[in-house]
Amino acid sequence: MKYPIKKKMIVKKRNYSKLGMSLEKDINQTNNFYLINDIAVIHKKPTPIQLVSVKYPSRTKAKITEAYFKSPSTTDYNGLYKGFYIDFDCKESSNKTSFPLSNIHTHQREHLKKIHYNKGISFLIIHFKFHKTYFLLPYKSLEKFLDGTEKRKSIPYEKFKKIAYEIQYGLMPRLDYLKIIDQHLLF
Amino acid sequence: MKYPIKKKMIVKKRNYSKLGMSLEKDINQTNNFYLINDIAVIHKKPTPIQLVSVKYPSRTKAKITEAYFKSPSTTDYNGLYKGFYIDFDCKESSNKTSFPLSNIHTHQREHLKKIHYNKGISFLIIHFKFHKTYFLLPYKSLEKFLDGTEKRKSIPYEKFKKIAYEIQYGLMPRLDYLKIIDQHLLF
Repeated sequence: MKYPIKKKMIVKKRNYSKLGMSLEKDINQTNNFYLINDIAVIHKKPTPIQLVSVKYPSRTKAKITEAYFKSPSTTDYNGLYKGFYIDFDCKESSNKTSFPLSNIHTHQREHLKKIHYNKGISFLIIHFKFHKTYFLLPYKSLEKFLDGTEKRKSIPYEKFKKIAYEIQYGLMPRLDYLKIIDQHLLF
Repeated sequence: MKYPIKKKMIVKKRNYSKLGMSLEKDINQTNNFYLINDIAVIHKKPTPIQLVSVKYPSRTKAKITEAYFKSPSTTDYNGLYKGFYIDFDCKESSNKTSFPLSNIHTHQREHLKKIHYNKGISFLIIHFKFHKTYFLLPYKSLEKFLDGTEKRKSIPYEKFKKIAYEIQYGLMPRLDYLKIIDQHLLF
């Protein structure tokens, strides 16, 4: 790891039974590790909600009684690492042989592209459940599939070993994706 | 303005009657202007919600029937400008003579500080309703009040002219805070 080594790494108590429960939880745990050890400030954005009805049963607390989930206009995660703007989304796939591009919504494609061309670091983290593998796919690798340079509707699993970076599953942090950023994506 | 001048600036139709309606709307309009003109990618984060009950009246749409607002763990706005990570919160004050520090919650203070020391650009945008003025207050100026160097529970209005930067109210964009960043805060 290229992080400055801290004298005392803060390690929270863990419940091993929950390891590998879901990609989102693993990423949240990783981000929390980065945050409390002052390595990076990366947060998951809240899910956007369309409010329809809000009641005020008491003076202090508003109660939402009707609302719907909206689709996010950006990615789920963004933040700051060593002065760089980091932006990514997480995807889980049960597919054995490839990652279908239909998993990436139009607004997410546009957002990842905008970030890349405004000098941010944008990527996807993809979990192949069948293979139990995790990859960081930089936007630049993804772009060839999105813009039609590669005429495919999915990225073959075998390709990931060439155009993406595998993230090893660990304990603390569980998915140390900043290690990949350090090694391959810092300008 | 130091932005690269675009041949064609995209200007959306406006409803003049709503001008100055609220700081949040003005900032959202400004961010939208930055986004569609490819100047910066800065979004408001969704308000975090604590879900209690969700029903599925149809297969396609989940209906939230009980939920509550949670207090945000960070600031409301963040994004990317010329490769820099931008992070801020907006505050409106009806106070004539000063800005009370109690307006800034503990988690926001910590977040703004973390961003500043991780090489991001963090600040507050404050609207003094009585004076009809808007200021960008950089974290570094705010810090002296938060850490006790300045022994006050509020920042006097007169001080803002020295330690903050006034944002002129305009039409398109309404509050061009990136101009201040350009002139005073880029490293």
